[in-house]
Amino acid sequence: MSRFPMPEWLENLPKPDRLNSDEERILFAIELSRLNVGNGTGGPFGAALFDLDSGELIEMAVNRVVPDSCSVAHAEICAFANAQERSGSFTLNTIGNVGLYSSCEPCAMCSGAIPWAGVKKLVYGADRADAESVGFDEGDKADQWKEKLRHRGIEVIAELCREQAADVFLFYREQGGTVYNG
Amino acid sequence: MSRFPMPEWLENLPKPDRLNSDEERILFAIELSRLNVGNGTGGPFGAALFDLDSGELIEMAVNRVVPDSCSVAHAEICAFANAQERSGSFTLNTIGNVGLYSSCEPCAMCSGAIPWAGVKKLVYGADRADAESVGFDEGDKADQWKEKLRHRGIEVIAELCREQAADVFLFYREQGGTVYNG
Repeated sequence: MSRFPMPEWLENLPKPDRLNSDEERILFAIELSRLNVGNGTGGPFGAALFDLDSGELIEMAVNRVVPDSCSVAHAEICAFANAQERSGSFTLNTIGNVGLYSSCEPCAMCSGAIPWAGVKKLVYGADRADAESVGFDEGDKADQWKEKLRHRGIEVIAELCREQAADVFLFYREQGGTVYNG
Repeated sequence: MSRFPMPEWLENLPKPDRLNSDEERILFAIELSRLNVGNGTGGPFGAALFDLDSGELIEMAVNRVVPDSCSVAHAEICAFANAQERSGSFTLNTIGNVGLYSSCEPCAMCSGAIPWAGVKKLVYGADRADAESVGFDEGDKADQWKEKLRHRGIEVIAELCREQAADVFLFYREQGGTVYNG
C-alpha cells in the first residue's frame, strides 16, 4: 500500500504508452482530474510524473483531501511521495530527469514542495483564477514564483491546455463537489 | 501504522502533562528536534500540535525525509497528516483550537500547508537564517508571509526560544548529519 493510497479506478487504469510531448502528458493529467470527479473520489485535480527523456509514466495521482482526511493529499504531493517511496530515494533526480504535469497551477504548498522533490520541469493546465472561480484557494505564493523555480533550474510551462483543464472545475461544480478550502 | 510512521523513541516518549504556555510547548518541539538528531532518525526539525485551550498534546512529529525516502516528510507535514488521519477529518479545526509549534520557521512548502491544515496559531523557534547557516534551504515564500497568515486568522509568534532551537542545528552539524537540500 502506498503512503497515499489511490482510488481503485486509478490503480486499474491502463498505463499509457510513452507520451512524448508536453501536450499529451498534460492531457493525461487533466484526464486524471476528470476521472477523479466522475468517480467521486476527490477534488478536481490530477498529477502525473513522466520521465522527460523516455516519455515513460512514473507515477499518477489525484487529489484525496476529503476522502482520505488529509489536507496535504493534493495530487502533486501524493505523486511525489508515492514515487519516492517506490524508488527508495527522497529525491526523484536519482531516477532521472523527471517532470511534473499537474492539471492545475500548484498551490502555495505544492509549489513550495517542487524544489524538494527533485523534478526538472513543471507543466500545468488551469491557472489559479480557474481554481478560484469555483471557490478553491491557491494560497499565498512568492511573487514571480515561476521565475524563482526557473532560477533553481526547473523549467516551467504554464497554462498548457488550460481550457480543457478549467472545464473540469465546471464539471466538479455541476456534480456538487466539496470546495474544502473555500 | 500512521501515514508518516515516527521513530520508535518518539512513539515511546511519555506524553507530557498539559503544557500551558507557548514557551513550554515550543521547548517541547525543540526537544523533539534534538532527540531526532541524537537518535540519528532524521533532520534537525520537530513539530508538535497542542490544543490551545486545554494545553493537551495532540500530535508530535519529526523530520523523516532521508530515512523514509520522502521529500515531503517535514515535521510539520507529518504532524498535520497523522493528526488528521487519527481524527478522521481533513481539517484540525474539527478537533478544536489547534496550534502548531515548530522548532524552526516553516519552509515554503510547510508555510503553504498551514492554512489548509486548520490550525489557529503558529509558533516557531529558529528562523530561516539559522537553518540556512548549516546549509538547509527554506525555499521561496510569499513576502510578508507571517502577515498573510495573520490575515487568514492564524496567529503567528516568531523566534520563541530561538537560541535553544538554533543550537540543534549546530548539534546536527557536529554529528555530520545530511543536509539534503543544500
